[in-house]
Amino acid sequence: MLKEAIYHRPKQNWAFAYNQDTVFLRIRTKRDDVQSVEAIHGDKYDWDKTAATAAMHILSSDALFDYWEAAVKPPFRRLRYAFKLTGADGEIIYLTEHAFETEAPADPMAFFDYPYLNPIDLFQPPAWVKDAVFYQIFPERFANGDPSLNPEGTEAWGGEPTPTNFFGGDLQGVIDHLDHLTDLGINAIYFTPVFLAPTNHKYDTTDYMQVDPAFGTNELLKQLVDDCHARGVRVLLDAVFNHAGRTFPPFVDVLANGASSRYADWFHVREWPIGVQDGIPTYETFSFAPTMPKLNTENAEVKQYLLDVAKYWIEEIGIDGWRLDVANEVDHAFWREFRQTVKRANPDAYILGEIWHDSLMWLQGDQFDAVMNYPFTNAVLDFFAYGKKDAKQFADAIGRQLAEYPQQVTEVAFNLLDSHDTPRLLTLCGDEERRMRLAALFQLTYPGTPCIYYGDEVGMNGEGDPGCRQCMVWDPYKQNQSLLSFYKNALSLRSRYAALRGVGLQFVNAQHGSHLLAYERFDDNDRLLIVINASDQALTYAPPASISQLHWSDQLSSGMTMSGAGTNACSISLEPFGFAVLAQR
Amino acid sequence: MLKEAIYHRPKQNWAFAYNQDTVFLRIRTKRDDVQSVEAIHGDKYDWDKTAATAAMHILSSDALFDYWEAAVKPPFRRLRYAFKLTGADGEIIYLTEHAFETEAPADPMAFFDYPYLNPIDLFQPPAWVKDAVFYQIFPERFANGDPSLNPEGTEAWGGEPTPTNFFGGDLQGVIDHLDHLTDLGINAIYFTPVFLAPTNHKYDTTDYMQVDPAFGTNELLKQLVDDCHARGVRVLLDAVFNHAGRTFPPFVDVLANGASSRYADWFHVREWPIGVQDGIPTYETFSFAPTMPKLNTENAEVKQYLLDVAKYWIEEIGIDGWRLDVANEVDHAFWREFRQTVKRANPDAYILGEIWHDSLMWLQGDQFDAVMNYPFTNAVLDFFAYGKKDAKQFADAIGRQLAEYPQQVTEVAFNLLDSHDTPRLLTLCGDEERRMRLAALFQLTYPGTPCIYYGDEVGMNGEGDPGCRQCMVWDPYKQNQSLLSFYKNALSLRSRYAALRGVGLQFVNAQHGSHLLAYERFDDNDRLLIVINASDQALTYAPPASISQLHWSDQLSSGMTMSGAGTNACSISLEPFGFAVLAQR
Repeated sequence: MLKEAIYHRPKQNWAFAYNQDTVFLRIRTKRDDVQSVEAIHGDKYDWDKTAATAAMHILSSDALFDYWEAAVKPPFRRLRYAFKLTGADGEIIYLTEHAFETEAPADPMAFFDYPYLNPIDLFQPPAWVKDAVFYQIFPERFANGDPSLNPEGTEAWGGEPTPTNFFGGDLQGVIDHLDHLTDLGINAIYFTPVFLAPTNHKYDTTDYMQVDPAFGTNELLKQLVDDCHARGVRVLLDAVFNHAGRTFPPFVDVLANGASSRYADWFHVREWPIGVQDGIPTYETFSFAPTMPKLNTENAEVKQYLLDVAKYWIEEIGIDGWRLDVANEVDHAFWREFRQTVKRANPDAYILGEIWHDSLMWLQGDQFDAVMNYPFTNAVLDFFAYGKKDAKQFADAIGRQLAEYPQQVTEVAFNLLDSHDTPRLLTLCGDEERRMRLAALFQLTYPGTPCIYYGDEVGMNGEGDPGCRQCMVWDPYKQNQSLLSFYKNALSLRSRYAALRGVGLQFVNAQHGSHLLAYERFDDNDRLLIVINASDQALTYAPPASISQLHWSDQLSSGMTMSGAGTNACSISLEPFGFAVLAQR
Repeated sequence: MLKEAIYHRPKQNWAFAYNQDTVFLRIRTKRDDVQSVEAIHGDKYDWDKTAATAAMHILSSDALFDYWEAAVKPPFRRLRYAFKLTGADGEIIYLTEHAFETEAPADPMAFFDYPYLNPIDLFQPPAWVKDAVFYQIFPERFANGDPSLNPEGTEAWGGEPTPTNFFGGDLQGVIDHLDHLTDLGINAIYFTPVFLAPTNHKYDTTDYMQVDPAFGTNELLKQLVDDCHARGVRVLLDAVFNHAGRTFPPFVDVLANGASSRYADWFHVREWPIGVQDGIPTYETFSFAPTMPKLNTENAEVKQYLLDVAKYWIEEIGIDGWRLDVANEVDHAFWREFRQTVKRANPDAYILGEIWHDSLMWLQGDQFDAVMNYPFTNAVLDFFAYGKKDAKQFADAIGRQLAEYPQQVTEVAFNLLDSHDTPRLLTLCGDEERRMRLAALFQLTYPGTPCIYYGDEVGMNGEGDPGCRQCMVWDPYKQNQSLLSFYKNALSLRSRYAALRGVGLQFVNAQHGSHLLAYERFDDNDRLLIVINASDQALTYAPPASISQLHWSDQLSSGMTMSGAGTNACSISLEPFGFAVLAQR
């Protein structure tokens, strides 16, 4: 066995409580190097009476490693454990916290320790999120429901978006189109910022306690939230707490009064007078943007102000959670208090951080419930949109992601394929709609919480900001109805099969040099086989006997023919970019 | 290069802020597999203008791996980075967050991210701890200064300790003997519990707000603390917050009133009525001890009570910190609040957790400053006391420990060799005093905070509890004066050379099958060479030219002769268990 490949460290994604009774243990080994792993575990204070072993299974694999997992239920909430590894060549080694051993280790004191499963430390995201499908709305561009609110210079709906123009989208527009959303099959909305701010994107907040009058009023937002709730749709707002806007009154005061402003400590001023030197503000900002001064979230007043904001929109307006802008540039200490405040206001509120990178240290139960899962986005795009990676590389990337976090993170990860910060999915797919459907199909048959960016479902395309922020297309003749049907069907399928939302996932075909992907999704009730041809050539897939001998029914497919079903000779032929979702009968 | 061996994950011990300006980056590679590593870093929002590279050096090594480190100062507190590795064979690969690359990666978005250095998240243990040498006192057995306080049945000083007997040790006894401590050269005391409790060890608290009358009064403790402070000696008390005692009034109330007690939720009762079934309490306890009911630190009242306790002894009595008993069985959430409370009461207070195992998730800046470093204890004992490991295995174990935590953890790790929970060091050394001296010499020339268990310095021995809890030997004729002198000299040396307290450490001789250990300790001012013969055979060490050509002066040695100093032919001969601490002149 390759010892250098073997990795385990207590807590994090390697030994974590999943619920009040269960601790998951994981260990990493070199891929295909180990034939079996057992976890030897027991209670540290009565080892002899409680010692047991648990067989581990391979949770996932990537290019270099297999990741093994077992669920263990410590009778007294305390767990001490070691691993017994049997190599592909039959060699047996034990891993304790202290060392590799060739003999069964006798002293549990040298084992790994999961000291106590204290419920308050348990990472438990809201249960509803596992079943949520989000729809992201950029309010200025979704629908103009009340032209009387149009800001000065509002342009005609459907014009060319620029970084600074306005089209009059508002909350009434959303209320007017809720049928579109529920018909589509989503059950949660994430709004980019709606608070008073000068720009069309409103990431430069003027007033955190007021809906921008161009969008409506706080009361109207409450009505929107109530209407959504009546339809079983949850609502997430965008908390831009990393930085305020140029017109945020405390910053205006600092600009006016300098170091003597009573708000001087609300920001991070490196050097007075406040200004911009050689393109670099003398105060900390988002990026180097002078209009986005970073808030000093270590200042007690700022903290209280933002926590009051967080509470107000939950308690008074009824929102179901917060998406946190630039979340990883704000201090961990603030987010810990934020979580306590938010969960006190509504234990079921979802806390979603914007982090594009490794997020482990925010996802341990004390800060966020989830992050915007851009690593997932990148893997899906590389394979389905760009064809840059083959099926094996794709399965390896996904396999790594599944092992990188505790299971509850996988269950509520916010899996987006595009957003207001990226080109649109169709554009990323080179306007090849068939590629787009495959990417969406994978997203909608994957664990976690998918998010659809407004308009993708009707065939909108567009380059990065401002191209991706066009007005929603409402003319049914200009909407891609066939694509819309595909989305509805895929969402309906996801809704029908809990197995498509759960964590049961196994790649059954993902080979080097191939763009044919087959994977199973399963739970205690159902087993689904998804076969995807992510290439522009027709392909035929001959499943292994364990699959081909079963009977499968077509749930959703395009360009697929199956022959010899139920026999060893079963074969599935897919047209270019064809796919099939099959359910075991 | 062996890719499976290469490891880095943001934050934790791999990318951590050391101070307000500096982020340390580390990466692991297979031992001797890589000739150089560079960190490529810059600001994510202006990569082109800020991109730079930092050469990494080997911080330490263990049996399998080299650990590389570089300190980087991000100009705008934001850091994006990747690694360039050059293999021993000249192969070059790059590691980004997303993948290994063979070409220099162009897109910093794919790099690792240290998003923002927010000061409040900075892990900054109190500065004084780096220079502290602790002395652990078990108060019932240190000195009887006030016989009028003797508990009933107090036995004559120096009798055989049992789990339950008393000898009358008290706080006045400590006050009376402070000269012994300052003469020895320590500057901090850690007291095992002093609060009212029925047992001699007092880990079963009756009243957290009162010094046990057999030890004295709260006022007397304050006088002791004041006297210590006047001598530059800090005082740490033991916080037994995981569990209370059988006689703790809220638990007494629960025993009397069962589920209807107003304190019923102060504990974790699995099943009423409260009792013991088949040796297992129906309520959660420390271990399975019915007299030690686990406190429900998730209950708001319990939390407030314990936080008030933590504050009281700091604010009113002036103690310098807390040692936390069974720290890892209490919830993380409680310790986060505890840290905030304690640091508000005294930002310089030291928070020391009792954890015998991997402690990374308690040592990220939001919970403890340090833990009782039993992994260090084990490594030192294996080599110096038991001779079970050779010099290479010892250096490997230490090398791994140095890499496992952020540098600030190393700087204030509580490095003990024995305690009230283990046999005494001399006994662990098979009563071979020369081995004991070597172990202590290593401890006292190692980074972190050494702790001497009362009486070790005068030659006391003893098996585990109760054997290690004998009465302190005060009769100078019964004290081992030669050993005491050794301790004083070693402590004086540590006090003289900051290099012996800092993190500059390099093993220069630690070979397979050998018990000769040579290591250097250095800082900007000084360079020391320590050579230790941990075997019962005379050994001769011929240092490499880089050392032998320098001039060294003997600072502390036993059974050492040096010849050819300052030439290539320099050789250091050591008697069995001989040692030498040399300073470069």
